[in-house]
Amino acid sequence: MIVELITTGSELLLGRVLNTHSQWIGTRMAEQGMPLSHHVTVPDTAEAICGAVQTALSRSDLVITTGGLGPTSDDITRERIAGLLGTRLVFHPEVEAAIRAFFESRRRPMPEKTRVEAWVPEGATYFLNQHGTAPGLAFDLSPNPFRSGGGRSGLILLPGPPRELHPMFDEQVRPWIGSRWGAAEGFMTKTYKTTGLGESLMEGRLETPLAPLIADGLQVGYCARVGEVDVRFSAAGSTASQLLRAAAEILFREAGEFVFGEGEDSLEQVLVRTLTQRSQSLALAESCTGGHLANRITNVPGASAVLLAGVVSYANASKTALLGVSEALLAEHGAVSEPVARAMAEGVRRVTGADYALSTTGIAGPGGGTEEKPVGTVFIAIAGPHGTTVRKQLNRFDRLTFKYSTAQQAFNQLRLALATASSPGPG
Amino acid sequence: MIVELITTGSELLLGRVLNTHSQWIGTRMAEQGMPLSHHVTVPDTAEAICGAVQTALSRSDLVITTGGLGPTSDDITRERIAGLLGTRLVFHPEVEAAIRAFFESRRRPMPEKTRVEAWVPEGATYFLNQHGTAPGLAFDLSPNPFRSGGGRSGLILLPGPPRELHPMFDEQVRPWIGSRWGAAEGFMTKTYKTTGLGESLMEGRLETPLAPLIADGLQVGYCARVGEVDVRFSAAGSTASQLLRAAAEILFREAGEFVFGEGEDSLEQVLVRTLTQRSQSLALAESCTGGHLANRITNVPGASAVLLAGVVSYANASKTALLGVSEALLAEHGAVSEPVARAMAEGVRRVTGADYALSTTGIAGPGGGTEEKPVGTVFIAIAGPHGTTVRKQLNRFDRLTFKYSTAQQAFNQLRLALATASSPGPG
Repeated sequence: MIVELITTGSELLLGRVLNTHSQWIGTRMAEQGMPLSHHVTVPDTAEAICGAVQTALSRSDLVITTGGLGPTSDDITRERIAGLLGTRLVFHPEVEAAIRAFFESRRRPMPEKTRVEAWVPEGATYFLNQHGTAPGLAFDLSPNPFRSGGGRSGLILLPGPPRELHPMFDEQVRPWIGSRWGAAEGFMTKTYKTTGLGESLMEGRLETPLAPLIADGLQVGYCARVGEVDVRFSAAGSTASQLLRAAAEILFREAGEFVFGEGEDSLEQVLVRTLTQRSQSLALAESCTGGHLANRITNVPGASAVLLAGVVSYANASKTALLGVSEALLAEHGAVSEPVARAMAEGVRRVTGADYALSTTGIAGPGGGTEEKPVGTVFIAIAGPHGTTVRKQLNRFDRLTFKYSTAQQAFNQLRLALATASSPGPG
Repeated sequence: MIVELITTGSELLLGRVLNTHSQWIGTRMAEQGMPLSHHVTVPDTAEAICGAVQTALSRSDLVITTGGLGPTSDDITRERIAGLLGTRLVFHPEVEAAIRAFFESRRRPMPEKTRVEAWVPEGATYFLNQHGTAPGLAFDLSPNPFRSGGGRSGLILLPGPPRELHPMFDEQVRPWIGSRWGAAEGFMTKTYKTTGLGESLMEGRLETPLAPLIADGLQVGYCARVGEVDVRFSAAGSTASQLLRAAAEILFREAGEFVFGEGEDSLEQVLVRTLTQRSQSLALAESCTGGHLANRITNVPGASAVLLAGVVSYANASKTALLGVSEALLAEHGAVSEPVARAMAEGVRRVTGADYALSTTGIAGPGGGTEEKPVGTVFIAIAGPHGTTVRKQLNRFDRLTFKYSTAQQAFNQLRLALATASSPGPG
């Protein structure tokens, strides 16, 4: 099934607004086994929209557009779309009544301009807008006049604002699509989140063992982000669940220690979840990551059940005042060193009484590197009920990527420490 | 000038990754007076990429692609692109040497697969990648064989990861484009960053006074993000600089107190810059923002000259242990209160000896709200050489937006306090 998304709006092309529609709609369509094949953004003029719709219909089973039909867009777009499909606009009093009710519920008068949105092309299904005024429109084109050989295609026109589009899509558009095209038969997909092994190394480990399953119809996708690689398995038909189970077994056998979660899991969510289940607590002492670890942990709802405190000990004096790192230790080894990382983790664990403590000290750059300790050098320590371990890394990235990947390593180190700590600590 | 962007990658169509390229590149091209006319996303297969490039070249003066040329993408893409343009791949030892040096600086072996990136189509300009391996490629097609009438077109192929693409674009691609196509004649643009006034209120203040300048050719754009509104003036021709100067005067007269910077300035950059110039220091005590303030301040290179320490005092006991907030005060007023915000800011200022201290305490949600103190309630305190001030806000957003907008308010409060503090404190 070929699905194309057309997002419209000059503000998207000028970069004034981030286009989030392709990710949002792309995820939902992929979940139903109808992944997007193509996405195009054009200005919201009647000419550009109609041109893009006609091109898309000539090659697709389903075409979805966003934006371009409100009262402030080019006011001839609806007329031109109706013309393209060989139909005409019909005024729907019940749509006008819904628009009027929308304004009344907000105690505002209905602008006369908005009335144009009650004109619906003949034969179209309309979706009333619960969070705005422009209704969505859907056409079941059977045959599709723009595709050689005809066949059946769908065209769905949706409002642009995400807060209007999202509920309309989930509540009205998905059922409309489902009743006509259904989900791909037996389509299943599963994404595993991994960290600690680069994309090509991961692919290298899995390539050969997965080959027989791929020959049987398994699809494998890799997606690399900073400090993370997603491994996505999908398959359709009667053997889909069997293929996915076999693929997962291979992944865990070949690279299980790198798998930290599934779907939309993040490392910080996994840590908060694990520590909450064990009723254990966490404290942080950050130098080079400057609060990035604390910020990510506290992005997780319920983090307050786990995180006692974080200290961003940027100046050396604050390492002494807040964490009890001795001045002599700092003078002897320097702030970026194995002993100071250890003392920071143990210090914050002592001050807060947490079960586990994580610390980071390093050189984020761009300045501050030396020959012995180049920019990117970082020490990560974990202090816990079973002692303290310190690991040295070299993360040569720009400043923000340095912080992000150091956090990935620190979180993953703690994840692995929690996995091997067979019994909860005395904490 | 017709400019088309092609972003490639199945992960973009499947919704696994948010496509930020169109906004980033769209903004930069618009600033040079060469806005994007069209943006398309296709899978990163040789067939899809070559098809999209050919279609784009048939209608555009400049085509920019992102992604699809790394070693794990379809490995015949470079060959197919060279074939499309009627040229062949040539091995460049100096590109291989740069790739090898990239891995050596990270003390990792160079994967053999990566060597494919040193094959460059004959006649192409290459841009070495400072933050990754795949070089960018650019073609000056004169004549463009795909466009009726020929003429000159540019084709630029860039790596997909933003941290590789962004510096390459600014340092190497912009000059390459500029030397061939130049910016639109006399085109000038200036963006002012504002905070504290919503988009429609800002527009309402400026609409009438700017009207005569708009009649003379000034273009005005507003771009709203969380806690920020960009105001962008642009104009072309011989009166451009005069129009921009007059528009800036109106902006500062009508809404000057909300303007905190220009171009790509962030509030945290402005704070680090101002405090560095004054040789003054900062400390942070965060509860509900959970390290978000510290993280943003330490994202700014040179932050270590200013930030002494941050304390994320999530648990009440840590407010006492690390900041000296008395248990009696916490018991009497609760952690989310004016007196506790004050005590946190004064406490971290005392412990660190900083000139200024910022504190936040509030209810980020989704849980934890009460009738008296609903989710979104937050107290922000500034302690400085001239005393302590506390402000209460109600930020009813999701958890992440709550943290972000609270940080905007806290940073802006400090910015205004620094602006009115006529003389540096005793520090």
